[in-house]
Order: sequence, then C-alpha cells, then structure tokens
Amino acid sequence: MMLLNPKRTIEELKQLRTLTADDNGAQRVAWTDTWLRARAWFEAKLQGLPVEHHYDAAGNSWVTLRGESEKTLIIGGHIDSVPNGGWLDGCLDLLTGLEILRRFNTEYNGRPPLTIRVVDWADEEGARFGRSLLGSSAFAGTHSIAADRSRTDKDGIRLEDALSRCGVEIDRFPDATREQKNAAAYLELHIEQGPVLEDLGLPLGVVLGTKGVERHAITFHGQEAHSGSTPMNVRRDALAAAAKLALEIRNIAGKHSDAVCTMGSVKTFPGIVTAVVGRCETTLDQRDLDATVLAQMFSEAQQASARFAAEEKCTVEWSRIWNIEPVPFNAQLVEFCTQAVTEVTGTCHRLPSGPLHDAAEVARAGIPSVMMFVQSLGGISHNKIEDTREEHLEMAVTALDRLATKTAAWILNQG
Amino acid sequence: MMLLNPKRTIEELKQLRTLTADDNGAQRVAWTDTWLRARAWFEAKLQGLPVEHHYDAAGNSWVTLRGESEKTLIIGGHIDSVPNGGWLDGCLDLLTGLEILRRFNTEYNGRPPLTIRVVDWADEEGARFGRSLLGSSAFAGTHSIAADRSRTDKDGIRLEDALSRCGVEIDRFPDATREQKNAAAYLELHIEQGPVLEDLGLPLGVVLGTKGVERHAITFHGQEAHSGSTPMNVRRDALAAAAKLALEIRNIAGKHSDAVCTMGSVKTFPGIVTAVVGRCETTLDQRDLDATVLAQMFSEAQQASARFAAEEKCTVEWSRIWNIEPVPFNAQLVEFCTQAVTEVTGTCHRLPSGPLHDAAEVARAGIPSVMMFVQSLGGISHNKIEDTREEHLEMAVTALDRLATKTAAWILNQG
Repeated sequence: MMLLNPKRTIEELKQLRTLTADDNGAQRVAWTDTWLRARAWFEAKLQGLPVEHHYDAAGNSWVTLRGESEKTLIIGGHIDSVPNGGWLDGCLDLLTGLEILRRFNTEYNGRPPLTIRVVDWADEEGARFGRSLLGSSAFAGTHSIAADRSRTDKDGIRLEDALSRCGVEIDRFPDATREQKNAAAYLELHIEQGPVLEDLGLPLGVVLGTKGVERHAITFHGQEAHSGSTPMNVRRDALAAAAKLALEIRNIAGKHSDAVCTMGSVKTFPGIVTAVVGRCETTLDQRDLDATVLAQMFSEAQQASARFAAEEKCTVEWSRIWNIEPVPFNAQLVEFCTQAVTEVTGTCHRLPSGPLHDAAEVARAGIPSVMMFVQSLGGISHNKIEDTREEHLEMAVTALDRLATKTAAWILNQG
Repeated sequence: MMLLNPKRTIEELKQLRTLTADDNGAQRVAWTDTWLRARAWFEAKLQGLPVEHHYDAAGNSWVTLRGESEKTLIIGGHIDSVPNGGWLDGCLDLLTGLEILRRFNTEYNGRPPLTIRVVDWADEEGARFGRSLLGSSAFAGTHSIAADRSRTDKDGIRLEDALSRCGVEIDRFPDATREQKNAAAYLELHIEQGPVLEDLGLPLGVVLGTKGVERHAITFHGQEAHSGSTPMNVRRDALAAAAKLALEIRNIAGKHSDAVCTMGSVKTFPGIVTAVVGRCETTLDQRDLDATVLAQMFSEAQQASARFAAEEKCTVEWSRIWNIEPVPFNAQLVEFCTQAVTEVTGTCHRLPSGPLHDAAEVARAGIPSVMMFVQSLGGISHNKIEDTREEHLEMAVTALDRLATKTAAWILNQG
C-alpha cells in the first residue's frame, strides 16, 4: 500500500490549473468567483475522508482530521493567486498538506495519534485590495480591520463589501484567533520565488524565517529649471540625489550576506525632456532576517539620503509605507526540516525568505513554525511561466511529509 | 521731443497682462481665443502709424514701415505664451520692436532711410501641439508640414484644424518664405529664462547663438524580479544603469564651459515598491553652441550608457526624439550688440542661448541675426512669477534701439 503519493499532488495541481487558469495564467484572485470555484473544487477532494471542514471568521478554510490527542499539527497554504499567476504559488503548499493528511489517515486508519489540520488561508496575496496575509493575520490577531475595511479594488468595490459577498464579516475577524486552540506546530511548503536554490543546483531548502521589511517613500525636492538655460553648476537636480541613493543602497545591503535593498519606483516631476527634475519620488524596500541589521540599513539609507540631498542642494523627506519585524522560525523545527531535506536530497541549504508568507503570521502568534522551499525555475513567480521541475515537486512533497512525521513525534513527546 | 519711450513698453506689457492673464498667469496660447484677442489688441496699437499690416501664409503678423530703401531691418517677437505663463516671454520682444518702429517713424517723419518691419511669430511656444517655432520655421522654409498636420492637442483637436479656424491653411506654409524678401538683418530681445545674468549682476547680455540640441529616449532593459527573494548579486537592475548615466552626464557636460546635459524624465517598470526595476525609460537632452562639442557629448553618453548597461547585465537602446544643429549668430551683429549693451550698462557678457528662439530659424534662412538677453529674476520663466526689474526692461529697450540704429547704418553701408 502506497501511503504517500506525490504524483497525485502534481496531478491535482494540473487539475486546478485547468479549472482556474486562462491563457494569461492563474486567475484565482481572492474574493472572486474563480477563487470560490477553486475552493469548492478543493472541498470536493475531501469526500470520503473522515474529516471535518469549516470556514473560520476570516474566511480561512480548515480541514480537521481528529487524532488521539487534541494537540494539532497544522499544514498550510493558500489557493488564491495573483492575477495572471502561476500554477504552484500557494496551492502546492495546500495540496501537499492534503496529501500528507491523507497519508496520516491511511497509516492510522482514520485516527492518527495527534490531530492533523490543513488550512487554506484566505487572501494571502492581497492582489485585489493591496493587503496581503489577510486571513492569517486575523488568525494571529494582528489584523488591521480599521485600515483595511475601506480599501477599494480597481473598480471601487470596498474590501468589506467584497468579503461580505463571500460570507465573511470583517468585524468578526477577531473570532478567527479561536483556531489557534491546541495548535502545536505549523508547516508550510512554498516555491522559492527566487533564484538561490537553482543557482546552487539544489531542489529543496530550509527557510530560517521571513525577513523583516522597512518600506519607505523617499522624496527629493530640488528646483525645476529649464534644461537649456540653466548652467550645470547652479542646478538643484532632485534626480541626481535620487540616483546617488539608488546606487548607494547596494553598498548598504552589500555589507550583509542576505540583506536586500531595492528602489522599485522612481517618478520625476515635471518629468519632461526639457526640464531639470524639480521633485523626484522614490520608494525603498529593505529586508533582512536580523532586526539589528535591518535597523542599521534603514539608518544608513536615511543618512545617505540626507548627504546626497545636501550635495545636490536639495531636501529630502521620508514617509514610512509599511514595516514588519523579522520572524525567525522555530529552531527545533528548522533542525527537523534540515534533517528531512537532507534525507531526501542528500544535502541541505538554509536561507531566509525575502517574500512574506502566512507562516510569518502563524509564528507571530507564538506557534512553532517552519517553512521549506522548493526550487523555482528562473526564480520567476507571480507569472504564468512560474514553474518547478516535477521531480523536485515530488521530492518536496516527500520531504515535507518526513518533516511532518518528525514534528508529530516531537509534539507528542512534549507530553 | 522724446523719440524712444521705454516706459511705454512696460505700460503696454502691463495692459496686455491685464487683458490676457488670469490668476494662474498668461493664457495667450497660440490658436486660442485669448491669443486672437492679444493679436487684435496689438493691431489696435498700430492706429495712427503709417504702416502696412498683414498676416503671412503661416499666420505670422507683419507690420511694415516702408523706408527710402527696400532693404529691411526686422525686429521680432511672439505674443503667444505657454499656459500659465509670464508677462514678458515673447511679448517684451514684440512690444520693444513696436517702440523702436515708432522711434524710426518719429525720427524720420514716417520715411526712414530703410524699411523697418516688426513681426509677431505665430506659435513660438508650441504649447498646444508640441511643435515650437511653427511660424518662424515656415518663414525659414524649414517647416515639417507632413509631421505636424496631424498633431493633436489634449482635446484631440488636430493642428491643421486649429490653424484653419484661425484662417491659416497649413498647405500654404511654403508661401511664408516670401517674407524673406529684402530682409537684411533680424534682431530679437528676450528675457534670459536662466540665472546667468542675475548671478553675474548684469542687466543685459549678448547672445552668441542658440545651442544645438541632441534629444534622445534611452531605455535600459534588465530583469524584473522580486525585491525580497532576489539576492543583490544576481539582479539585473535597469534603474541602477540609468542612475549611473544620470550622474555621468554631469561629467560629460562638465568638460565644456557652457554645455548642458539633462535627464528630465525617468520611468520605472513595473514601478512598484516590491520589484527590482526591469525596464527604465529615460530622456536625455544635450546642448552646446559648438557642433563638435555636441557630437562629442552625444558619443560619450552613448558609450557610457553601453558601459553601464554591461556592468548591470542590462541592455540599452537609444531613440532620437529630436535634434537641431547649433545656430551661431552673425559675428558683426554680435559685435554691434556688444557695443550697444556696453553703452547702456557699462559692461557686457556674451552667452549662448540654451532655449531655442525664432531668431534661430531666421538665422537658418541665411539672414544675419542676433539676440539680446535681459536678466530674469530667479532665472524663472514659463511661470506666472516670471519677472524682470523694470529698470532692466527700460535698459533693454534702450539697448535694442541702439543696436537697431547700428544695424540700420550697417545695412545701408552695404550699398
């Protein structure tokens, strides 16, 4: 009897793609009809399994296989996608969880020694309303209802109303924390969405935690001036100050092994070919797993921007867009994950996650958590060409199952 | 008897401002009702003068005071403005021409020794359709009818139709070259629109010519990537390459005393806080009075952009937006202008013009031409706060009149 069937997971991922993707990629944007169809498809997969299913107050979908102990191992993912997304991001995690739940069910004839739950987090991507980790933040009690309620999508529809249409009342979000009861550990598999594992030639990696993020809008103010009549030495060129910062952030990040700094947006005003830039609006995104490093990079960028503004006779102002502290994963689970990956692939690499994931919210709730990464081809995600070799997907399902076994034993041994 | 009355010019500028400006500045955009009202106001000023007036095939407005000789001295300006423009740009030139014509009329009892013409060029600014020097290019025979006919304004109205409404048929533009007949010299006064004279503490300056311009769109292509998951050392950041060029163009210009290089527009794609810039579209505007210098700067910028693209593992493509060769003014007229400015102010400074002016088109037609600049407060133009001290305006009218006298004598001595 085959207990775990990783090929079935790949088959189910392809079914889901057929059901919910078009020529431009996956269209499972949360709170849309396609997303609801994907969720109904997932629920149908539960038929014949001795599980309970319900939606919590934030729309997270919970599948529970009750065990001898109420102590619970949770495996999570998200079936929602960005518009024109890929076939793996989020649903690989969820369907791997389902496959592992099936294995526990088969192995223990419907009554495993501990409780196994699989969760489909609602609106991980935040693609429609710009608020990611919506469902898992409600679970963790870190929601921001007041700020999120009135968010609108591109058609002007309010977040609160879109959720209500799907049966979710935003004011009930706090009730989702009830799902934390008995949670003893949380596991999540995800495609890397970056190039590190591919560059190292490794199928799988152990995630040390999610990096903290400092995200700011930085605006340089100079003096708009005629490009023909204004000598170089009297200009107050806001773009020049911004350009210096765009280059300096690489030095700031370069002092630390896994740190990243990104200037993703530059806007010039008046932004015409015949005028020196009078105002330059930029964004800066800084990430590291070490809170001290992150704080240092933030401080260095501020100092550099002030220096460059002064050099260019400009001024600079900073406005925080968003920030989050680093979330290191549980040391014991990181060790188990390292063992599982090594058993399946013969080697192991540990890396932080730059992107955020629901696991960060679960960890913030104090539940021991860890993630495993599987290689992304070309490091590409949030795109229809997102892909991973099928042999790597099978190794990922197998390795996460081994991690689940180790974690279950650890939970039970805690007494 | 007072022959020249510079205070009257200032008075008339204020009348025009009252008639055609609102709280946001001058609104005499070419081919609009306000522009037509300004032109009608100017025509009314001709009552009582023994002059002929007509519009040529391109809508340029010509006032002719016939003299003993058919040889003609032309003084030009433009009554059109940018939207929300200032009270001096263009109309100072025109009304100074009118005042000098009046002086010749008075001094010679309606029959000066040579013919004096004052021209109001149509649509110098190109504010509505993006095509500057429209009327003077028709005069010079350097028009671009095929390219200009279908230009549209922000409301979708075609240039050809807007002109037709004002009685100008674009296909008749070539007939405007007839106005070149007997033209022996061309003079133009203009506000500097830059900070040079103010910084030197000088009221007036002699313009050596208009700088040539190389204007290009430069696009760097890298690789869009996730700002959290993409290590610094594997990025192909199109913004980094553009930032290097934004800084390097200052070194390229800095090798030459009056050269300028400007990156006026930067656009980032996808242009979001969480993505490394995959494509960066920039513009480069380079100007110098020396064609060799201009060509060298263009070449150096191309080489630098290729070097930076390679350093950042990006590619770069150039697309010419527009260019024009430098137009040096007539050496003898530059000398006369130097004398006139020195006589009035006691000192003199010669400088190239970065902005283009109608005088460049007249010079391209082979007519000896020169311009005089008067100081701009704060170097600011194309804005309602554009201003010049009234004492400087009076000196400008006086100096241009002296230049006209010297030029008239030179024309007549040419036999």
